[in-house]
Amino acid sequence: MCAGPRGAVLRPYQILRREALQCSRTMAGKKVLIVYAHQEPKSFNGSLLKIAVEELTKQGCSVTVSDLYAMQFEPRATRNDIVGRLHNSEAFNYGVETWEAYKRGGLSKDLVEEQKKVQEADLLIFQFPLFWFSMPAILKGWMDRVLVQGFAYDLSKCYDGGLLQDKLSLFSFTTGGTKEMYSNGGIGGDIRYVLWPMQHGIMHFCGVKVLEPHICYAPENVSEEKRKEMLTGWTQRLKTLWKEEPINCSPEWYFK
Amino acid sequence: MCAGPRGAVLRPYQILRREALQCSRTMAGKKVLIVYAHQEPKSFNGSLLKIAVEELTKQGCSVTVSDLYAMQFEPRATRNDIVGRLHNSEAFNYGVETWEAYKRGGLSKDLVEEQKKVQEADLLIFQFPLFWFSMPAILKGWMDRVLVQGFAYDLSKCYDGGLLQDKLSLFSFTTGGTKEMYSNGGIGGDIRYVLWPMQHGIMHFCGVKVLEPHICYAPENVSEEKRKEMLTGWTQRLKTLWKEEPINCSPEWYFK
Repeated sequence: MCAGPRGAVLRPYQILRREALQCSRTMAGKKVLIVYAHQEPKSFNGSLLKIAVEELTKQGCSVTVSDLYAMQFEPRATRNDIVGRLHNSEAFNYGVETWEAYKRGGLSKDLVEEQKKVQEADLLIFQFPLFWFSMPAILKGWMDRVLVQGFAYDLSKCYDGGLLQDKLSLFSFTTGGTKEMYSNGGIGGDIRYVLWPMQHGIMHFCGVKVLEPHICYAPENVSEEKRKEMLTGWTQRLKTLWKEEPINCSPEWYFK
Repeated sequence: MCAGPRGAVLRPYQILRREALQCSRTMAGKKVLIVYAHQEPKSFNGSLLKIAVEELTKQGCSVTVSDLYAMQFEPRATRNDIVGRLHNSEAFNYGVETWEAYKRGGLSKDLVEEQKKVQEADLLIFQFPLFWFSMPAILKGWMDRVLVQGFAYDLSKCYDGGLLQDKLSLFSFTTGGTKEMYSNGGIGGDIRYVLWPMQHGIMHFCGVKVLEPHICYAPENVSEEKRKEMLTGWTQRLKTLWKEEPINCSPEWYFK
């Protein structure tokens, strides 16, 4: 990176400018899908969403938001997800039926639309408040219904072989409890236990690479100043997000 | 237990009969709520539900089933859960609003009904297929919406001090993956990671004691004979369920 187009040596400011340009080129045109699960735009989660949309758009990324509550997104996995006849109408099996429906192009319109957004995205950001050590049901329903067999994984095509490779994901969430509570020895246990089903069980299973999660601890119980710091922290992180390497979300630690 | 009412020595058959009576007395009148999340009565989960209802009823328990899909249970946590005016209509905060609504008796009818069932129950059984290392969204929505602050926990009334003490719970679920996959060293990691948010993060948080989970691994991928064995195993377990001691669902292991 220190040699010019024809091998000429560049001065430091030229190197810097060139790297900035290259970085900007890398980001511009990137497609981001933010799957957002909060009822209130004025909430802290709403602010985090706004920051992500603004910052990523400024970088030249194309940003799409699935605002689940605003969309009244259906979280229930039912027969309504299959258009037309069932593969086996004698005994309804959601996994089999959605797999078959996916293959023949027979999934309901709302699922097809979400799958198209996922397919086009380079990066999936999930923005939500932690509910009961997990995602709110409306977001869990998005996972349950959108990531069907055939689309996100298939027979023996899972984990590193999952069908959504070359995509990145990032779980960005707020908690009610403090960081201490979710630390080793804290009453909530290590936050890694909370991350496992989302990062390894869902994203890794589908072949999606995982960036470091972004966790804002207890924003409702800190000072206004601390909240602002948290928001600034998110903006700062997003500025260099495309330079980040995916983490190993399934380290040895979990298998001991 | 070997001495009669007035200290007279009992013959072996009398002891047996007396123990049986006592056992039956302990079970009779117990109230069980089964929260069930499967779309198809003919499914393996449907069979497990049927067995539980029959066996527990036979024991003299009073069994209530919340059949979430049949009820079209709403999993989304929204403003609709609060009847009448909001505590703060400027910025909707689900946690605060449901807490305030609970205190003034202003939660929506479906939530009040579920809370009443929980309140009356001695034992909560959750019966469902594992979806993405967790509960199906419809069941997660039951947790999100029913177990509100004031009802299930309160300021500093959580974990061993949670508001739903003297109740037992049991997570009974089926998996897609095999037992080996969810064992130490398996690709799915130890099943204890899956259990953590449900058992510790939800039930223990609310003060509910936890019985050993009942896991049927990969029923769709085993022989008919093996499936029958699994069903018989559930019946057998239920026969002596009331003699079981709660497990420690938050052992040292999680805090290392």
